[in-house]
Order: sequence, then structure tokens, then C-alpha cells
Amino acid sequence: MAPTISVRNPRTGTVDYQITPPRAEQVASTCDRLRQGQLEWQALGINHRIDVLRAWKQALLDRKDALIQAVTADTGRWAESVLEVDSFLSGLDRWCSLAPDLVAPAPPKTAAIPFIELRPQLVPYGLVGVISPWNFPLLLSTIDTIPALLAGCAVMVKPSEITPRFMEVMLAAIAAVPALKTVFTYIPGAGETGAALIDNVDLVCFTGSVATGKVVAAAAAKRMIPAFLELGGKDPAIVLASADVDQAATALLWGSVVNGGQSCLSIERIYVDRRVCDRFVETLVAKANQLQLAYPEPNSGQIGPIIAERQADLIRSHLGDALEKGAVVHCGGTIETLGGGLWLQPTVLTQVDHTMAVMTAETFGPIMPIMVFDTVEQAITLANDTDYGLSAAVFAGAPDEAQTVAQQIQAGAISLNDAGLTALVYEGEKNAFKLSGLGGSRMGPASIQRFMRKQVLLAKTSSIPDPWWF
Amino acid sequence: MAPTISVRNPRTGTVDYQITPPRAEQVASTCDRLRQGQLEWQALGINHRIDVLRAWKQALLDRKDALIQAVTADTGRWAESVLEVDSFLSGLDRWCSLAPDLVAPAPPKTAAIPFIELRPQLVPYGLVGVISPWNFPLLLSTIDTIPALLAGCAVMVKPSEITPRFMEVMLAAIAAVPALKTVFTYIPGAGETGAALIDNVDLVCFTGSVATGKVVAAAAAKRMIPAFLELGGKDPAIVLASADVDQAATALLWGSVVNGGQSCLSIERIYVDRRVCDRFVETLVAKANQLQLAYPEPNSGQIGPIIAERQADLIRSHLGDALEKGAVVHCGGTIETLGGGLWLQPTVLTQVDHTMAVMTAETFGPIMPIMVFDTVEQAITLANDTDYGLSAAVFAGAPDEAQTVAQQIQAGAISLNDAGLTALVYEGEKNAFKLSGLGGSRMGPASIQRFMRKQVLLAKTSSIPDPWWF
Repeated sequence: MAPTISVRNPRTGTVDYQITPPRAEQVASTCDRLRQGQLEWQALGINHRIDVLRAWKQALLDRKDALIQAVTADTGRWAESVLEVDSFLSGLDRWCSLAPDLVAPAPPKTAAIPFIELRPQLVPYGLVGVISPWNFPLLLSTIDTIPALLAGCAVMVKPSEITPRFMEVMLAAIAAVPALKTVFTYIPGAGETGAALIDNVDLVCFTGSVATGKVVAAAAAKRMIPAFLELGGKDPAIVLASADVDQAATALLWGSVVNGGQSCLSIERIYVDRRVCDRFVETLVAKANQLQLAYPEPNSGQIGPIIAERQADLIRSHLGDALEKGAVVHCGGTIETLGGGLWLQPTVLTQVDHTMAVMTAETFGPIMPIMVFDTVEQAITLANDTDYGLSAAVFAGAPDEAQTVAQQIQAGAISLNDAGLTALVYEGEKNAFKLSGLGGSRMGPASIQRFMRKQVLLAKTSSIPDPWWF
Repeated sequence: MAPTISVRNPRTGTVDYQITPPRAEQVASTCDRLRQGQLEWQALGINHRIDVLRAWKQALLDRKDALIQAVTADTGRWAESVLEVDSFLSGLDRWCSLAPDLVAPAPPKTAAIPFIELRPQLVPYGLVGVISPWNFPLLLSTIDTIPALLAGCAVMVKPSEITPRFMEVMLAAIAAVPALKTVFTYIPGAGETGAALIDNVDLVCFTGSVATGKVVAAAAAKRMIPAFLELGGKDPAIVLASADVDQAATALLWGSVVNGGQSCLSIERIYVDRRVCDRFVETLVAKANQLQLAYPEPNSGQIGPIIAERQADLIRSHLGDALEKGAVVHCGGTIETLGGGLWLQPTVLTQVDHTMAVMTAETFGPIMPIMVFDTVEQAITLANDTDYGLSAAVFAGAPDEAQTVAQQIQAGAISLNDAGLTALVYEGEKNAFKLSGLGGSRMGPASIQRFMRKQVLLAKTSSIPDPWWF
């Protein structure tokens, strides 16, 4: 029998769930089954595939409370779990309405050679593998899955072994729709299972850390399959002197501590013009102090527990390193154990610099380290002094002033006078810069196009003898 | 001093040229220089970049004879060298006229949230590395380079060490245009130099074998940079009973033996309906016998020498294996040594099957192995029984009948009632299937888009208080 994996509850710190990963040969045989099903799924056509996904949506609505509860059990937080479920369901609707136009090939263009006609086709990949993380377990296990299914692919998802509870509800909703069950499943497991999945799919989508992303990229390169990687960030924010300081503090607090900072696109570094910095720090700290831990009840406050135990060690090490090197704590600053879970109040730091891990490595905690700048050039240089390039935020009196700065930042999505807008506006196509990822845009129409290969049929439509040889 | 590499002349078999690869640290410092130049190149804007490339075109026209001679010395063939130079120059024109529309971001779409405005941007990669092969040394060293330069990238090209002579002319034409010289160069070398290039660029384009493509993919994955791979093929052709046999034979002869079969998209397997197979073989052999080796003069005939000595060994092994297993030779069949070069007459084989390397591995020679089929389903199964998926050809009475079959073939570009049309029609966007490659379409508008990252600025344009937190 395959060994089981114990799953820790983030609110209690105790093991109260187990998963049993399939053996590699079981992964392979499940992939074979899905790949067989994919042929019919592709042949079904987009309108029927939409009908099937709409039936799935009904099956999910029938289980909506159970899904919210499972995601809450997985992550320890409640408000974001409701948000995840709602975002997922509205994403399903959005894709169902957008897909018919997007899976049809662009109309043929006139070829340069008059007697040759171009007939473009779009051919889905057979089987897509999705390896998803623990910070938004439901949303990030479905963000690539929905467009892949609509494109005509079969999909196998392996969610994080840290947050696997929601799988049960998803599998029940999939089982309720027989036409979906033949092309879509979740499998439990950790790294080994992910490796087995990569060995058997035609394309892999991975959301997670840069370190694991490199392993996925190497495994995909070995098999010569596409890997779409959405990795970490160390997203900077720049607050110019002309900014509305109160608005900036509100937005950056949200952008930094929502989901306890456990978001790839959370703001992890804040650069503020010296002229407004004191006022900004004061305002931010006052707002941060209004937030409360979601303890003892999941809806007692806004800040949920640290989901992954190992992440708490990393946060502790970043804080320790910063304090040792002279950082000043204005609020928060110490990980607490409450009811067995690990918690951190929103933490504002000043007197930080780029010798500190908290300014260079992904922390994934509710921490807002603030650094002063004197010139805009300095702010841009600091913002770009990073191996990451996921997203960013710039605050100024007017969006156009913010835009001038934003255009010099090496990142895929930049909010102007707000933070984290890319999480809320699905239409904004973007690529990751630097180590933050690889592959086409996950947002916007480009997302579904990633799952189809372009194929062109070139028809010689005249019987004129071939001119280029005889 | 770095060791030199001896270069064999494909017409004489003797070493008459040498290259001295740069050391790894020289590659790195040249890359630094190009990357510095890129900032200004990007800032220059598309219209000025076009002016610079048009000045380069003039510098190339001033050296057109020298370029044709150098490519002919590299490859031993003349007609295809003229074709390469002309294709390259017309490609330059085409891209200069298409680029202005393609480097501008798509107009902003209305965002789902009314007070957020999307401002899409396109940001070129800094430095693109191009590693190109020996079969079309000029064309394949520029096919990715031209759109990359117009997108605003700097480019470093490392052509094959087997055909490096044309570099001198290219470097002279680049040196004649100072604004281009700061962002574009060629470097000589073999695998080690290619590895040093990958270590220093932001994106790599590779055209070559699957084996080396895997090495490139692994090196790129390690650095987390995009790799666009255009690899081998074992392109099948299907001739249905309704096909015009004479037209099919003419097209397939061209598609199989142009450039001596040394083309990734040459037809390497022909499946013919039993009812027309005898007539097809007879017609094809008669046409093949009309072709002559381009010996003693480069324009004495149509079939140039085998360019790479090691490729001759592979062709010999494929032929030997096929004959041993019962294949029948109808013409050609033996590699000859003439004037020191290695030559093979167009070779038609029958009685072949998929146990033979000549039907499964890339041969890259002027060989046409023909296999009979009884049903269309059988033909499609045979065509898809391959690790490759580059292109294909289908012949039938009408293009629509051919299309029904073509749509079941797993390949990126499929000619209907002709062969190799993808080489002639640049507008046909396509992806490689299976092991034949990775990355976006090299053809059509998608090609230039590969060299720019999508970036989105999301502007909060109203001062309505942030609704999703407080």
C-alpha cells in the first residue's frame, strides 16, 4: 500500500486529515483514461463542453457550503474562502460566455501567393496537468483548469498536500457530471505525485515557488512539453510625494496582508518619498492596528493563520534577520501560537534595506517593510533590484504620473493608485518578468489560447503546374 | 588563446576555413554591451528601428554577391543559396512593413470593474540569443532575429560551426550601420559557445536537432528563460487514390529533395493508396531520374552535396538498415564521393515499414521511402506513428477531401495538394506538435509577439473609497 501523508490543520496545529497518493503507475493509468476521454471531449464541440461545465456549476452550487467549509478547513481563514468559491464560480461563468469566440480559429488571411489558401485550425493539447499551491487552493487549482477544459483538453489536477481537503467536494461535483468525469480529475499527493503527473501529461501548469518551478521546468524540458509557470513575487510599491497618503495606506494594507500576505502578488516592499514617509507610516500603522486576528472564530477578525508550518519558519527568519540588522518594528513583529495555530499580526517595519532578506526574498507573510527614497530614479532602481517581476503598485496624485513611473518597472501587472488589481481584473493580459514565471498570459483571452496549438492547412487551390522546380 | 575550429568544405571535403570561438567571459562581456545598447534601441521607437534595418538592407545589397558566394561556400549548393539570400531580404522588407502595427499593444479593453482602466503595454525582452543550424545557415540565423530586433530586443546569433563563412559578410553589413552594431552581432563557435550564450541572454531561439534542443531546453529551464525551439521532423505525405498522381509526384519530389533533403520540413515518408501506388512510384522515379547532382559546377544540377560529414554517416546507416530489412531501391541509394564531397542522387525506396529507421528517425537526405496503404484510417495511423509533428502533406482530388484527412494529422502545418508550402507562405501561424518544437508560432504576426512581454497597467481612475476592505 502506498504511504499516506498526514495533513496539519492550520487553526489547531494538529493532524486531522490524511491523503493517500496514488502510485506512479496509477497516475499513468488515470492519465491514459483521461487521454482516451479527451478525444470525445474535443469532438463534442465548444457548445456541448459549455453545457457540461454549466452542469458542473450546478453540482458545485449544490455543494457550495461544503466547499466553503472544506476550503476553510484547509486554510484556516473564512472570508477569503468565501471569496475563493465566489471567484471560482464567477470565473466559470465568465469563461463559459467568452469561450465560443476564443476557441474558433482566426478567420483565414489572404496568403501572399494568390493560389494558396490558408485554413487555420486550433488543436487542443490532449492532457493538461495542473499542480497547484496551498495559498488559494481552490482558485489556483481551477484558474488554468477551466480554460483548458473549454479548449478541449482533459485535465488532471494535483493540489498541494498541505491543503487537500477541498478535493473531496470537487471530486463529488465532478462525479455528478458523467461527461466531465471522463476528462477531469484531482489526485492527492506531494512532489513525487507531481513528478509522476509531469511524466504523463502533454502540458503542465504550475503555480508555486521559484525553487519548485525550476524543478517543474527541468522535468518538462526533459519531456519537451510546455510548462506554464506562475511563481513567486517580491512585489514593490512606490508612493510618490503627490500621492493621497490615506488612500495609499488603505490600498497597501489590503495589498500586503489580505490572506495573511500568503499571495504571490501581495505587496512585500514599500518605497515612500521622504516628504510623506512619516505621515504614511503613521497612517499605515493606525490602519494596521485596526485589523484583528481571525481568532478564536474564523470570522472574529481579518487575518487568518499562517497556513503552512514551514512558512512560519521562513517568516521568523526574515524578521530575525531584519531586526538583527537594525529594522524597527511599528506593529506586529512576532509570530504567536494561539489554539495550536501560528499567527502574525500585520507588521510594519522601517529602517530596512536590501541587505535584508525581508526586502529581497519572498516572505509570504503580513509584513510591510518601508524604505524611504529621495528621488524617483532611486525608487525605480530599488523596485527593480530584485530577481522577481510579477506585479507592482505605484501611487501618485494622478494615474498618469503613476504611469510614467510604472512603465519603468519590470513587472507584468502594475496597479496605479491601488494594489493587487490584477487579482480582480481578469481581462488584463500579462507575462511574468524575470524569475516570476514562464509561458503565456494566464489572464484575459490569451489564457485559453495557451491550451490550443495553432495548426495551418495550406491548400493549393489551383491546378497551375508547380512553378518552383520544373 | 582560445582553440580554433576547422571547417570542412562540403564540395571538396578539405578544411579551408577556421573559426576562433570567443571565451565564455568574452561572450558575457559582449552580451553586456548589447544589453546596454538595447535600452536605447527600445527607446528609439519602431519607426527609427525600421529605418536602421532598411539601412542594413542597403548594406546587405551592397554585399549581395559576396553573401551568395559565402553561403554557397558554406553549403556547397548554389540555387538554394540565391533563394536563401532573396528570402532573407524579402523577409526583411516584409517585417519592416508589418512591424509598426504589431509592436503596438492592442487597444485597451473595457474592464469588468467600471472605475479601473486597463492600459496594455508591450515590453521587449532585453537580449535574445539565436542558435542556428547549417542547413539554411543564412535564413535560419535571421528568421527569428529580424522580428526580435524590430520588437526592440538586442540579438546575438551563434550560427553552426559547420557553416560559419557567411558570418563575415553579415558582420561587415552590420558594421556599416552603427546604430545596429550596438545591438546585434554574430559570434562563431560550437556547443560550448552556444552554452555560454544561453547563460547570458534573456530568451533563446534554437533551430536544430531534437537531441540538442533538449539540451537547450534544459539550460533555459535552469535559468528560467523562455526557449523557442524549432526542431526536427519526419514529415509524412499521404497520397489518396483520387490524387493527381503526376502533380503529387512533382510536388513530393521537390518537397523531399530540395536542398538535398536537408530541411526540417522536407517530406521523409510517403504513404500511397494501393490503387495508384505503382503509377506513383513509376512517375516519381522518372522525375527523380531527371535531376542531376550539382557537380562538377554548383549550377550543373539541382542536388547539392551533403553539407555535414556526420550526416552522411547517418544517411548511410538509415539506407543500410532499410536494405537489410528488405527495402527495394528504385533510383539513387548510394552515397558517392565526387571531388572530395559527399553526394546522394534522389533515392526512391519501396517495401519499407516502420521497423526501419528510414521511416521513424530524421534522415535529412534526398530519400523518398514509399509505403502502400489500403484504407485512409491506416494512412492516418501511419502518418501519426511518429515522435515528430512539424508538418505534413496530403494529396487528393480536391483540397476539401485532403483537408478531411489533414485535420487528423498531428502536425503544425499541412500542405494540401502540395508539399512544403509552410516554407513559402509566411502568414500561416503554426505550433510544432510532439518533439518537433516548443514556443509560439515562428510564422505570421505571432512571431514578433514572442519577443515582447505583455504588461498591463491597471489604473484606478476614480477616488471612490476602496470597497473591498474597509
